[in-house]
Amino acid sequence: MNFLTMLKDVSEKFRSIVCLGMDPLREDIPLREANVGRAIYAFYEAILDRMAKEKVFPAAVKPNYAFYAQYGFEGLEALHGLIALYRKEGFPVILDVKRGDIGKTAEAYAKECFEFFNADAVTLSPYMGYDSIFPFVKNYPEKGAYVLVKTSNKSSGDIQDVPTPDGPIYEHVARKIIEWHSPGIGAVVGATYPEQLRQIAEIFISTGKEIPLLIPGVGSQGGDLESVLPSLITGGSWQIHRINSSSAINYAYKRFPGMHYAEAAVKALKELNEEIEAIMGER
Amino acid sequence: MNFLTMLKDVSEKFRSIVCLGMDPLREDIPLREANVGRAIYAFYEAILDRMAKEKVFPAAVKPNYAFYAQYGFEGLEALHGLIALYRKEGFPVILDVKRGDIGKTAEAYAKECFEFFNADAVTLSPYMGYDSIFPFVKNYPEKGAYVLVKTSNKSSGDIQDVPTPDGPIYEHVARKIIEWHSPGIGAVVGATYPEQLRQIAEIFISTGKEIPLLIPGVGSQGGDLESVLPSLITGGSWQIHRINSSSAINYAYKRFPGMHYAEAAVKALKELNEEIEAIMGER
Repeated sequence: MNFLTMLKDVSEKFRSIVCLGMDPLREDIPLREANVGRAIYAFYEAILDRMAKEKVFPAAVKPNYAFYAQYGFEGLEALHGLIALYRKEGFPVILDVKRGDIGKTAEAYAKECFEFFNADAVTLSPYMGYDSIFPFVKNYPEKGAYVLVKTSNKSSGDIQDVPTPDGPIYEHVARKIIEWHSPGIGAVVGATYPEQLRQIAEIFISTGKEIPLLIPGVGSQGGDLESVLPSLITGGSWQIHRINSSSAINYAYKRFPGMHYAEAAVKALKELNEEIEAIMGER
Repeated sequence: MNFLTMLKDVSEKFRSIVCLGMDPLREDIPLREANVGRAIYAFYEAILDRMAKEKVFPAAVKPNYAFYAQYGFEGLEALHGLIALYRKEGFPVILDVKRGDIGKTAEAYAKECFEFFNADAVTLSPYMGYDSIFPFVKNYPEKGAYVLVKTSNKSSGDIQDVPTPDGPIYEHVARKIIEWHSPGIGAVVGATYPEQLRQIAEIFISTGKEIPLLIPGVGSQGGDLESVLPSLITGGSWQIHRINSSSAINYAYKRFPGMHYAEAAVKALKELNEEIEAIMGER
């Protein structure tokens, strides 16, 4: 099964287009394990158990490599274990690594992500051009590869908004993605720039190809669902896209005093699923 | 001691501006260890011993993360061990990771590279803007951070050569580096584009700031020293720059039949040091 089909199937099965970002920070995990890796694993295992109990699910998970790697081998062991755990339950795992390198190096990164960590998809940076995308999409046609187009952060414009004869750089990258197209290729577009997101979605629609969007930036970064979601209605299946939420779900216990962290996380996930359904249900 | 001072001191001490890229591939390492991590460690340990014996040295080493990570934990343990080993002998270690992420993620990557792996410098991708550079250069002022400007690969032009009102994107990034300047910041510019390298070096000279270049692409990628080195004579100390060579030194035994791999590697390193000295000595 290729990644695009997986996205559609899972979305239907779990009635969600939410991607649960998994960004562990020792100081925010309310567990007293001495081994940080075991604390991280236990934290996300409890959230998974609670999701199963309440039958509330995301439609993908996105562990961010940096958050695990900062804790050295213990953190990376937790990452390896959590990918296996969540995949076993049927969730597509997007390993957020934002790799960008060439030739044998890119091949080695693809091996790391798809063979060692066994992820279903990765995120990639386009700065080095097609050489840095090719080894992921051509050698692993059943996997996914989301290329950064317009990112959610404040200074994303430093490079991405620079004007060129064909529009800003992010538009140029969107067109390159079409040129580089293979079934698993997708795009990262931040929810904090809804106008640019609309533009990019339109560029993709005009090709008739299904290019899944991974949309970070809702919640703590300030992205607004009302202004983002309408751009996903594109004639094709809008369920191929994913709205990512990380800390607002991971650490929801901070907003719900007295509640167990896993219960709080699932409550926040449920609210996000419902909010999306309320907006999209009208269409 | 900050990174720039380290670059100058080491260059003087070892009479070299070569950066030894350390890109392990199991199939190219002529050792029969069952544990690939131990094979990698032993391979580069033997090369270090041979360098000490012959008193022939590089002026930095650059392990490329992907080559280690592709072998999972065994590979990453070798990386961790080799960084400690080479640093102990006084070599600046540039961890080639090409990371590019924002906020807490960028902070976590900086922690991974500078606190867990304990590298002296890293490589970074500029696509996400200053948010992705800031946590490395501001939080670790004594460390180095080389930002990709014009890379050595064929398709580097896909994004980097796109014209803008201020010249191609790589020029725009070079000017951003000046804007973002702090003592540890440097630039990656491929030897395969000598004309662009000259241009970028000139942009940096015009600011009066010392911005170290990391120059991959000589050797197997076809970069030519005669056309690259003159651009490094800039009035300031040209010994802050580094010419990287990876596989041409690592696997030099393939070119010298019957020779031990460590002897062959040191022979290739010596030739590169001498070739550079022959060209720069005339100036």
